[in-house]
Amino acid sequence: MSEENTVYIGKKETMNYVMAVVTQFNSGSNEVYIKARGRAISKAVDVAEITKNRFVQDAEIVEMKSDTEQVPRTGEEGTANVSSFEILMKRKE
Amino acid sequence: MSEENTVYIGKKETMNYVMAVVTQFNSGSNEVYIKARGRAISKAVDVAEITKNRFVQDAEIVEMKSDTEQVPRTGEEGTANVSSFEILMKRKE
Repeated sequence: MSEENTVYIGKKETMNYVMAVVTQFNSGSNEVYIKARGRAISKAVDVAEITKNRFVQDAEIVEMKSDTEQVPRTGEEGTANVSSFEILMKRKE
Repeated sequence: MSEENTVYIGKKETMNYVMAVVTQFNSGSNEVYIKARGRAISKAVDVAEITKNRFVQDAEIVEMKSDTEQVPRTGEEGTANVSSFEILMKRKE
């Protein structure tokens, strides 16, 4: 997996990330990873669903997986546990 | 799949749903479904991660899948598309 075909979900509007995924597919990628942490996970699922339903109909979600990451607390000592999430989309063969 | 071993994620605190999942496992269920829609999807992932990391160490996430559902708009005509999400957790054999 390279970083090139990975879209990281942040605080922008959902459609920004949908367009990023669609652009990946249209520029020749056969697979695209969508990654998110914490509250952005819901948006990652929206991005995958909108991409396959409306823009890249021959793409499908082939894997979804989650993990727990330790991130430093802002302004405090120690770390907090945050869920991370990854969706792999591929063009159907 | 029965409704008995399904935990629906709503607006309560995350730990309420973690306890519901743990209770299912402790009352003899070998598999538990966690279901959510829209913004609650992030919380569903947190619930699964916290359950397996802290409370039911022999449980694992065996499947995650998403779909798009049409829900009526509140106070308006027509329907809106909402992502739905399902996590299947099982005790390791």
